[in-house]
Amino acid sequence: MKYYVGIDFGGTGIKIGIIDENGKILIKDSFDTDPSKRGEDIARHIAECTEKVMSDSGLPREAIQGVGIGSPGLLNPETGQLKVVVNVPNMNDVFITRILSDILGKPAFLDNDVNAMSLGEFYYGAGKGLKHVIALTLGTGVGGGIILNGELYRGASFTAGELGHMSIARDGKSCPCGNSGCLERYVGRDGIIERFMIARNKGLDTNIEKYLDKGKITPKAIAMAAEAGDKLSIKVLEETGEILGAALATLVNALNPQAIIIGGGIANAGEFILGPARKTMLRLAYAIPAKVVKVLKAELGNDAGLVGSASLVVANLS
Amino acid sequence: MKYYVGIDFGGTGIKIGIIDENGKILIKDSFDTDPSKRGEDIARHIAECTEKVMSDSGLPREAIQGVGIGSPGLLNPETGQLKVVVNVPNMNDVFITRILSDILGKPAFLDNDVNAMSLGEFYYGAGKGLKHVIALTLGTGVGGGIILNGELYRGASFTAGELGHMSIARDGKSCPCGNSGCLERYVGRDGIIERFMIARNKGLDTNIEKYLDKGKITPKAIAMAAEAGDKLSIKVLEETGEILGAALATLVNALNPQAIIIGGGIANAGEFILGPARKTMLRLAYAIPAKVVKVLKAELGNDAGLVGSASLVVANLS
Repeated sequence: MKYYVGIDFGGTGIKIGIIDENGKILIKDSFDTDPSKRGEDIARHIAECTEKVMSDSGLPREAIQGVGIGSPGLLNPETGQLKVVVNVPNMNDVFITRILSDILGKPAFLDNDVNAMSLGEFYYGAGKGLKHVIALTLGTGVGGGIILNGELYRGASFTAGELGHMSIARDGKSCPCGNSGCLERYVGRDGIIERFMIARNKGLDTNIEKYLDKGKITPKAIAMAAEAGDKLSIKVLEETGEILGAALATLVNALNPQAIIIGGGIANAGEFILGPARKTMLRLAYAIPAKVVKVLKAELGNDAGLVGSASLVVANLS
Repeated sequence: MKYYVGIDFGGTGIKIGIIDENGKILIKDSFDTDPSKRGEDIARHIAECTEKVMSDSGLPREAIQGVGIGSPGLLNPETGQLKVVVNVPNMNDVFITRILSDILGKPAFLDNDVNAMSLGEFYYGAGKGLKHVIALTLGTGVGGGIILNGELYRGASFTAGELGHMSIARDGKSCPCGNSGCLERYVGRDGIIERFMIARNKGLDTNIEKYLDKGKITPKAIAMAAEAGDKLSIKVLEETGEILGAALATLVNALNPQAIIIGGGIANAGEFILGPARKTMLRLAYAIPAKVVKVLKAELGNDAGLVGSASLVVANLS
């Protein structure tokens, strides 16, 4: 059996784990990072934490094939260099894979967190066995990963997959990115909350109060209220699905994928969003590619980042 | 030197030619087809015409590597079977590559005309030397071809690249395809004419009359009037470019290509459309992929179909 190490590098901490050839997690652990340290020292600390997990696993060293690290922000997967790490600016410009592979004696691979998650779903989640898969993560931001002909497509400068910034509405809501009508503004966290507030301010009845998160409306609260039958919440999620479905129709017409996998926190609303999304996509896309594509919920949940990062090793060594 | 045969199969006739390794056309000829004949007989006739061109070329038989045929409509490039040929329904279901290669003794390859043209531009036109290229053809319809990592991407059921049916405007103009706000409705032939008529009906001044085609407004007439300084025509083309540019921003964010190549009859308006398209794309797309991508006019002009079809051989044998 072969094993792969995954490092899910987030803003505030890191998760490190080891998966086997079937994507099963053998061991996982969490660590803090100190963003005030020098970037190379943070990288060295990550390597040491990884060393600890490898050693804790009890696996023979030679069974471990390599180390994958997924990070938010801008980076170069070919040179393994981080470019802009918004929450940990000291890491900017650090050649993280070089430091990891020097210390651990294993090949190391870097990619952005959404690409990593997409590969995780492709190898071990909802996309298992397929060749052409688009993954969308719905959260505060909306990101995407594009896997075509069995390979992650990164683009000319490694920024392919910014599917949250497809414009679906000329003259639509303005987006901080500089464009108008970006998908993210409608089906990302703030877009959903905004639509909920507008509907509630119209005086429509809701039981959301029971589900608020510290008094605040969140997509999670809306999903919980919907689950409990709250009509307004159901309507807002349905609308979210319809808007998402219209964007999926564009993706289906353009890329004719076998599956579109929806992940991220907002995907936990499940069929409240995915049902209407599927229906709208089927109605708006060309019949042939619409019939072929499956719109699926991501399967890896909270482990998506970890399994995805480990999948970078699989993708690069296979 | 190696040579490739291209067959540009249109609704009313066929063009057949031979190109060399540099994409230079050695010989080309046109033939009529009789759509009332049996499909297999039409296919055999195409093979005989091709045989004639091969013989007329005087090339040694073994220098000819294969035959590529580009066709409109639905088809299966893997089995070489035509599926739905709108203008020549007798050709539906014919295994055209089998008949061509049986009669000609050369490997034969089939793809749709837009994919073929895209490959032609990729190998021998504006996309020469690049890896990630998107081609858009603007005409009555708006089509697309997607070349990623140096390979034509066809999708799960060979319909990838329907870029005219990206929706750019939720609740926009309805499209015969069933969707709303399709790019084709704005930058295709009818969309451009429609916008011209609306502007003229507002009483805006124009000299278009001199350039009408049998009394009719066409994109070509508008381009000629623009060339001669007609302000209304210039404005309509500029607007076309701006709408196109907004769609390009979505493509640039999603696919991060090195070049987007604009072809088809409407591209003859050149910088009147491409200038504003480029400017709008640069303003709306993410800075990193926007900086990397070139928006180019297609270079192969009237020979695009022929060179493109021959390129199918290059793509399949290399």
